[in-house]
Amino acid sequence: MIINGGEFGFIDRIRQWIGADGKGVALGIGDDAAVLLPPPGKLLAACDMLVEGVHFEKEYISPWQLGWKALAVNISDIAAMGGVPLFALVSMGLADWVDDAYVEGIYRGMLDIAERFGVELVGGDTVRSPQTTVVNITILGSANSPVTRSGACPGHLVAVTGYLGRSAAGLAYLQKMSHEQKTASQDMKGEIAWIDELIKAHLEPMPRIHEGRALAATGVISAMMDISDGLAGEAHHIAGESKVGVVLREDAIPISESTLIAAESLECDPLEWALSGGEDFELVFTFPPESTDTIRNALSGIGGSMYVVGHITPMTEGIVLIDSNDVKRNLLLEGYDHFSGKQALRS
Amino acid sequence: MIINGGEFGFIDRIRQWIGADGKGVALGIGDDAAVLLPPPGKLLAACDMLVEGVHFEKEYISPWQLGWKALAVNISDIAAMGGVPLFALVSMGLADWVDDAYVEGIYRGMLDIAERFGVELVGGDTVRSPQTTVVNITILGSANSPVTRSGACPGHLVAVTGYLGRSAAGLAYLQKMSHEQKTASQDMKGEIAWIDELIKAHLEPMPRIHEGRALAATGVISAMMDISDGLAGEAHHIAGESKVGVVLREDAIPISESTLIAAESLECDPLEWALSGGEDFELVFTFPPESTDTIRNALSGIGGSMYVVGHITPMTEGIVLIDSNDVKRNLLLEGYDHFSGKQALRS
Repeated sequence: MIINGGEFGFIDRIRQWIGADGKGVALGIGDDAAVLLPPPGKLLAACDMLVEGVHFEKEYISPWQLGWKALAVNISDIAAMGGVPLFALVSMGLADWVDDAYVEGIYRGMLDIAERFGVELVGGDTVRSPQTTVVNITILGSANSPVTRSGACPGHLVAVTGYLGRSAAGLAYLQKMSHEQKTASQDMKGEIAWIDELIKAHLEPMPRIHEGRALAATGVISAMMDISDGLAGEAHHIAGESKVGVVLREDAIPISESTLIAAESLECDPLEWALSGGEDFELVFTFPPESTDTIRNALSGIGGSMYVVGHITPMTEGIVLIDSNDVKRNLLLEGYDHFSGKQALRS
Repeated sequence: MIINGGEFGFIDRIRQWIGADGKGVALGIGDDAAVLLPPPGKLLAACDMLVEGVHFEKEYISPWQLGWKALAVNISDIAAMGGVPLFALVSMGLADWVDDAYVEGIYRGMLDIAERFGVELVGGDTVRSPQTTVVNITILGSANSPVTRSGACPGHLVAVTGYLGRSAAGLAYLQKMSHEQKTASQDMKGEIAWIDELIKAHLEPMPRIHEGRALAATGVISAMMDISDGLAGEAHHIAGESKVGVVLREDAIPISESTLIAAESLECDPLEWALSGGEDFELVFTFPPESTDTIRNALSGIGGSMYVVGHITPMTEGIVLIDSNDVKRNLLLEGYDHFSGKQALRS
């Protein structure tokens, strides 16, 4: 990474891109630490790291998309708590192939989604990472009554805010195109709108902040998280934290027409994408059945959707998927894991 | 990176290492975001990323030291504002050569310094980074009246809290030993106490939290920062943010006996180490001359030290070093920079 003007000029340019300090920021980028004035209430904090070759390939993600996605996945963590995102700190390790324009692209992508969700970029660290570009963002947010993963009870329903498997389908296309030595996805993108939609779902995910806040505001959500690892993995997380079992109904899992077409075309299983593809960044949440109308109204009031995909059982019943013939199978943990099977899909 | 038990088991083990949620932590590791209850006052936030091959070499830093240092450099950013460190979020990209014991070592190092300074580890992200291990920490802290870099005025004195150049001297030894194919530093470390001291200064830096708080509490510090890039680079930072010039006196810069011996032995310039070596993590601060006694008393009250190394001038006079013969030279920016000359020394 050769930065014109070195570190000093670089920080000046970041400051120019970001503009004046925004709401709640007493002192932004350029000192040893940012000085923040968060609103009263509980402070939320989370971080996510994206690594070149593992979470993205420079061949198919634009710098703008990398910036967007790096912040989107963090904002999604705040959405998962029903919170409001406020501040972000950006650490970047830049590979030697990165140039000025690439870094600006990353910042433009971050700033576009930051503006959309009212997030202020307040600090960071930019260093060399000769072989591998790494982007880590820490997000801070606030919530009066954060919704955790641990409150689900037997009898509660399980629902999601939107289609699952689209991101995995988009990734499958990107990998296929990459394998066929096409430069990026330009050839197919312009021609076929639904491929474009799937690729966008993977590279430009939209965090469900409004849905998360609307859901938290109902006061009846017993557990909530975002779907970054696939529905099966998240079911395990909620089960583990809430000490319950989960039943998912195969035919209730919302899969878009575009994903079904893609699965047929690529000879893949769309259900597998939905269950273990991950990175859809929809929310999965649980609630008492008698609150269904309340929740449906809260979501439709903000233009959101809700699909009931299953229910909570006692812990002893484990994590189960029921197919359209009412045949049950256990959803094992293997294959839904950052450190094992998941990598095959993610990278 | 092969983690026994995968991501799920891994998070459980991190939780065990960390123990129960501490002060101000409503919800620690394991959910989408941590839920924090920081004390009233201003919130401080900063982050630092350490990259294998750039900021450390696995051949000479132990995992415990890597964990210690990764958190130390962040705590130092809070010290630089005169604040109290509170919470840390840890993102790690783990290379394929990393094993369970290595990760535990990193955590043990982080937890040891966290306990020492009252920091709670509240969240993080652990991912694969096949070629390059990367550790990013975000630190949150608090301060009623944070001290920035921008308040220095002409006539104010410039001082530091301790010896400069020790870390660079330690690094020079590590590089020499590494070059000579010695495994780590065991051979020389046991034998010669002062080499051990220098290497420790580089691998196990001690952030100046108590000094920073004592200085901020005097109410007369006009600018402060930590010395991560060498005194010359930091002088440029203060000059740039405060719109002033800086004069440093060569013979006033505190250099330890051990550093002088090392410089002679390695045929290096100890002044160069002090000015541009960096990573000493002492504080540099400015104040009106009439407050000298107040500050000296505040520091000696907590067992700290103070060395006046120069003074602030009008901006037009630039950044100047005066040698023992009263000869002035301009300290140019080149060579004191993360993206250019500094790398040679840092890596």
